[in-house]
Amino acid sequence: MRWTVRSEQELYADEWLDIRLADVELPDGKRLSHRLIRTAAGAGTVIANDRGEVLLLWRHRFITDVWGWEIPIGMVEPGEDPLRAAAREAEEETGWRPVGLRPLLTLQPSAGITDSVHHIFFASNAVHVGEPTDPYEAERVEWIALADVPALIGRGEIVSSTTISALLYASASRSG
Amino acid sequence: MRWTVRSEQELYADEWLDIRLADVELPDGKRLSHRLIRTAAGAGTVIANDRGEVLLLWRHRFITDVWGWEIPIGMVEPGEDPLRAAAREAEEETGWRPVGLRPLLTLQPSAGITDSVHHIFFASNAVHVGEPTDPYEAERVEWIALADVPALIGRGEIVSSTTISALLYASASRSG
Repeated sequence: MRWTVRSEQELYADEWLDIRLADVELPDGKRLSHRLIRTAAGAGTVIANDRGEVLLLWRHRFITDVWGWEIPIGMVEPGEDPLRAAAREAEEETGWRPVGLRPLLTLQPSAGITDSVHHIFFASNAVHVGEPTDPYEAERVEWIALADVPALIGRGEIVSSTTISALLYASASRSG
Repeated sequence: MRWTVRSEQELYADEWLDIRLADVELPDGKRLSHRLIRTAAGAGTVIANDRGEVLLLWRHRFITDVWGWEIPIGMVEPGEDPLRAAAREAEEETGWRPVGLRPLLTLQPSAGITDSVHHIFFASNAVHVGEPTDPYEAERVEWIALADVPALIGRGEIVSSTTISALLYASASRSG
């Protein structure tokens, strides 16, 4: 059932976030106030090789104070094509240049509160071009067996829903 | 590598959101300002049956204006146990009472900007107790074959990264 936004009031805005209060009409005519956060899209890449491995970053997230494996992902710059953004972020964060990117899936991390969209691509190969030029993201960059991903999730070593969705869907698509 | 928060300034706060500007110190001593959004945890459930199906809601998200299949999930109330919240939300949103909930995985939807955590549980069965008492969430509630989930993702009929992570991990755990 479809909710209708009758009006929006700006609560807070800066170059990163645009937070609004929406006056929402429910199908039976009831009204409610609902927060919504507009933010830039993200673009990430599942980088695979011919040994059944994927390229992952071991990183700490200060907001949740948790370490975990993640695919390379970053914000799409204004006017930037998501595929180009995914390739740029992958090279900046890992030092590997993905080869032959193709769209894998598009994810909505939390559509109940934000319009954030993550465009995820798949690369079947990558070329090592040097050290990461963004030195603040990863503690380590490693090739991990895609078949080991469910066990890593089970041990709490992958907690990002974008990374889990992308890796398990890539695995299901490959085996399916 | 670990970033250190030197201070936080409140940008906006209400009963739903707490948005701060953090003064972050990078490992080499560089400083940057970083937005962070504190919000309540969510709790959801993958409800399965003995026919290899899962209980999903077909719903519209007004913020992204997209329809998709989702597991039942909602906000954990203050002081509420996540397992109880997951069971409550499942029954409110689907009219089915999940049986024998156990923790499946814990997800972070967007740890680069928010501390949001989704606690996901698995129920191997459910009892139909009536119509959903929350009539505003789902257009339809249906049992869907878990084996069909990758195809639904491929057709863009499942876009929630929490739902995709939960269903594909449940499937991988079952087959693994």
